[in-house]
Amino acid sequence: MSAGAGFALGRLAEELAATLDAHPERVVTGVASPENAGPDDLAYLADRRHLETARASRAGAFLAAAGVTGLPGPTLQCRDPRRALAMVLRLFHPLTPVVPGIDVSARVAPDARVDPAASIGAFAVVESGALIGPRVRVGPFAYVGERVEIGEGSELFPHVVIYGGCRLGCRVLVHAGVVIGSDGFGFIPGADSHLKIPQVGTVRIEDDVEIGANSTIDRATLGETVIRRGTKIDNLVHIGHNVDVGERCLMAAQVGIGGSSRIGRAVMLGGQAGVGDHVEIGDGAMLSAQSGTVQDVPSGVRYALTWARPAMQAQRIWVAEAQLPDLLRSVRTLERRVATLEAREGQRP
Amino acid sequence: MSAGAGFALGRLAEELAATLDAHPERVVTGVASPENAGPDDLAYLADRRHLETARASRAGAFLAAAGVTGLPGPTLQCRDPRRALAMVLRLFHPLTPVVPGIDVSARVAPDARVDPAASIGAFAVVESGALIGPRVRVGPFAYVGERVEIGEGSELFPHVVIYGGCRLGCRVLVHAGVVIGSDGFGFIPGADSHLKIPQVGTVRIEDDVEIGANSTIDRATLGETVIRRGTKIDNLVHIGHNVDVGERCLMAAQVGIGGSSRIGRAVMLGGQAGVGDHVEIGDGAMLSAQSGTVQDVPSGVRYALTWARPAMQAQRIWVAEAQLPDLLRSVRTLERRVATLEAREGQRP
Amino acid sequence: MSAGAGFALGRLAEELAATLDAHPERVVTGVASPENAGPDDLAYLADRRHLETARASRAGAFLAAAGVTGLPGPTLQCRDPRRALAMVLRLFHPLTPVVPGIDVSARVAPDARVDPAASIGAFAVVESGALIGPRVRVGPFAYVGERVEIGEGSELFPHVVIYGGCRLGCRVLVHAGVVIGSDGFGFIPGADSHLKIPQVGTVRIEDDVEIGANSTIDRATLGETVIRRGTKIDNLVHIGHNVDVGERCLMAAQVGIGGSSRIGRAVMLGGQAGVGDHVEIGDGAMLSAQSGTVQDVPSGVRYALTWARPAMQAQRIWVAEAQLPDLLRSVRTLERRVATLEAREGQRP
Repeated sequence: MSAGAGFALGRLAEELAATLDAHPERVVTGVASPENAGPDDLAYLADRRHLETARASRAGAFLAAAGVTGLPGPTLQCRDPRRALAMVLRLFHPLTPVVPGIDVSARVAPDARVDPAASIGAFAVVESGALIGPRVRVGPFAYVGERVEIGEGSELFPHVVIYGGCRLGCRVLVHAGVVIGSDGFGFIPGADSHLKIPQVGTVRIEDDVEIGANSTIDRATLGETVIRRGTKIDNLVHIGHNVDVGERCLMAAQVGIGGSSRIGRAVMLGGQAGVGDHVEIGDGAMLSAQSGTVQDVPSGVRYALTWARPAMQAQRIWVAEAQLPDLLRSVRTLERRVATLEAREGQRP
Repeated sequence: MSAGAGFALGRLAEELAATLDAHPERVVTGVASPENAGPDDLAYLADRRHLETARASRAGAFLAAAGVTGLPGPTLQCRDPRRALAMVLRLFHPLTPVVPGIDVSARVAPDARVDPAASIGAFAVVESGALIGPRVRVGPFAYVGERVEIGEGSELFPHVVIYGGCRLGCRVLVHAGVVIGSDGFGFIPGADSHLKIPQVGTVRIEDDVEIGANSTIDRATLGETVIRRGTKIDNLVHIGHNVDVGERCLMAAQVGIGGSSRIGRAVMLGGQAGVGDHVEIGDGAMLSAQSGTVQDVPSGVRYALTWARPAMQAQRIWVAEAQLPDLLRSVRTLERRVATLEAREGQRP
Repeated sequence: MSAGAGFALGRLAEELAATLDAHPERVVTGVASPENAGPDDLAYLADRRHLETARASRAGAFLAAAGVTGLPGPTLQCRDPRRALAMVLRLFHPLTPVVPGIDVSARVAPDARVDPAASIGAFAVVESGALIGPRVRVGPFAYVGERVEIGEGSELFPHVVIYGGCRLGCRVLVHAGVVIGSDGFGFIPGADSHLKIPQVGTVRIEDDVEIGANSTIDRATLGETVIRRGTKIDNLVHIGHNVDVGERCLMAAQVGIGGSSRIGRAVMLGGQAGVGDHVEIGDGAMLSAQSGTVQDVPSGVRYALTWARPAMQAQRIWVAEAQLPDLLRSVRTLERRVATLEAREGQRP
């Protein structure tokens, strides 16, 4: 886990605004989990459940929450240890600078404009009219379609495909195998054949968006499919045509969003959650993992579905549920019958 | 949204069999939504819910349903405006003709037969014995395996992979990242290891099928996995080995179909719907989004699952459901007890 | 379905330890299903449901379970016909030997070590410090990142992406479009922006693992994401960062596993099943298709969710369920009221 460079604990305490209990001069050269850390590593203690493991750790030092003591080495105590971990990992693993230039095997159209500070990888294809900003990395086998625009500091990992006309902002990270701008799923069903509605819109991805491996974002029928600033999308997610995703959303893996839906700001969608077509999800709403909705969800509320159970029980419930509407009626009838009996009972001497 | 060419409204009215209320000579050069349309655009009014937006539009003309009036510009009224939109988009964005030829960077096996009217893109690989028909487009980085056949007018977008022996019909559209012909998931579970069943069948895709980005269609164990004529498949869909999908089905994104299942004609599967192994789905059946079945579904019926709810309510229901089978018994018992009481009550003077 | 070579039935009977009822000298040259088999084919009878089809088959011979008789040709009876099918398919379709060498179009870093018995396909990229073992096949367009290690006899199908630092064991099969080692989904949510936690761990795939098309396996934040020996993964599966999957698991298509979860040995996950973050699934447990859990599942148990129903019924149940917690209370109240009535009834002369 070591990245070569080392940092003195005292220096790390300053950078992280952490409290250090001993040995400010000790140097650590890597970050690891308590069970894997060696004497040159800083071990990160995710939470108190791992205290026991940490006490047996060979780590040279520890990064933990405020108040965690008794560890077998000098400890950096932080108010927000997860944030501190993010910072310390960036210190040990700084972003490598972009090596500008176009790989000799890449295919760049003569009228594509590639900033001299951008990097175009092996076998990449950049089509006519594309615009690649400074410090952009276009990875091996990436396909950048006609008139695509990519803003400063963005990165396309290997095998990314961006169809013609789509635009990406700055510092957008697009992981391997992502497809942006494929046709929306628009057909007019017919008895003999389904008529394709040409998908002539585009996709716009704003600044600081990250998109996980093999996710797909369809182009709009007309206008734009939009992913707004700071939204983070996990792997194998599907975003349909004309969807508008607000700022700072978090979408876990395998989420699917149907055409023309509008997702508010800071919405959180759990893994495999689904949103139907033309649905509106309010700001800050949450859909738990695997839940789905074909109706609008108001701002701030949390939606959930039910979860798996032991199979025998699930089967019995499934059978019983079919009788549930009748059961409701039976109980209402029973209540009336009992009330009648009680009334007569009351009249009796 | 303009594509350069313009059309007079009178000409459009003829092509679409639409009624035009004014200005047949006015020329529009693009199609847009009412909010984005400019004075040279034809604005498409999806439905009456957007009437208000349309009334504030700067569009030069409108395309709307029969009976929609009062818009701030000449209006083409159509019986089926969505179909008219498909037609008008095709007029403004005609399919670009295939530029025949094999890119100098492509790798085509000497004994592959590529029609002179086909186009093979940059870095494409066409293996031995493959057969590429007229006006086929093989996109950049596409992989066409040994003995693969691709019929007239089909298109492989960038990064499509077709394993050896698979056959595609005419006018098949395969979006970026699709994998056709990967091994079916066939193993004989064992205590020490799972024995792989060699997957030696193929995949056959019939005419006019469209397959969305990053979807996967497995080859058969023996024989063929078949996708029949006119079926449209969205992104990230999985079709297992030996599945037979009938004509003109519509499958939304992230649908999964287990091995050896048979899907009838014109079946509609909502997003994230799942079909188990060896299941038969009848003609015209529908599975709503996220629903799943491991049992056969008869023709013409619509199947659904339940939907997400506010999380607190979902949790309470989930807990209550566990008591549902017992509850059914309790109510039956109560009914008997109440009947007994009522009978005695009836005997009393 | 023929592969050129032929086998005498007597020889097959020996290889499969099968009973043959006639014609040991007859030669078959292929394997097929009963409906597709011709006079030179061995027809495989999956189960007795297909007996009728088999009786009408033109096949030259049959492979069936012990006790199946009356077929229109000599029959190999086997105790485990599915295992026999796997063996006979391997006989007819032997693995083709690796043709060693580096394709002239491939890009291999000078300091990558490629075994002379390995094969590197067209346009493949092998980055600095990578280590490719004997008889490994790196398919066209595969991307092998820096310091990646791939053990003997493994195969990367076209378009596989392996990010830097990941390690694959021996005989690992990675189907087209798979991404291994993309960043885990780790962010610290913030009001203005979400802070990315650098993902500096790796992925380790042990021997004899198979991974289906377009699946994604994320690298660990720290340490390793691990897929242990003999596990088989279907298409479009997502494995989150720091997940540890035990030996010999079977995961059907579109399964998703959240970050840091631990899956035991020989766990079976049905299609589209989901496991939340930090969840532990015990050895031999099963999650049925589409089921999901955010809680630990003990060893050996089977979990399931409910299944789709006719839409009208599903809708009525969904409405009724909302009243279920209240209904439970109503029934308890009713039981008390009836008991009171019964008690008074008992006291009466």
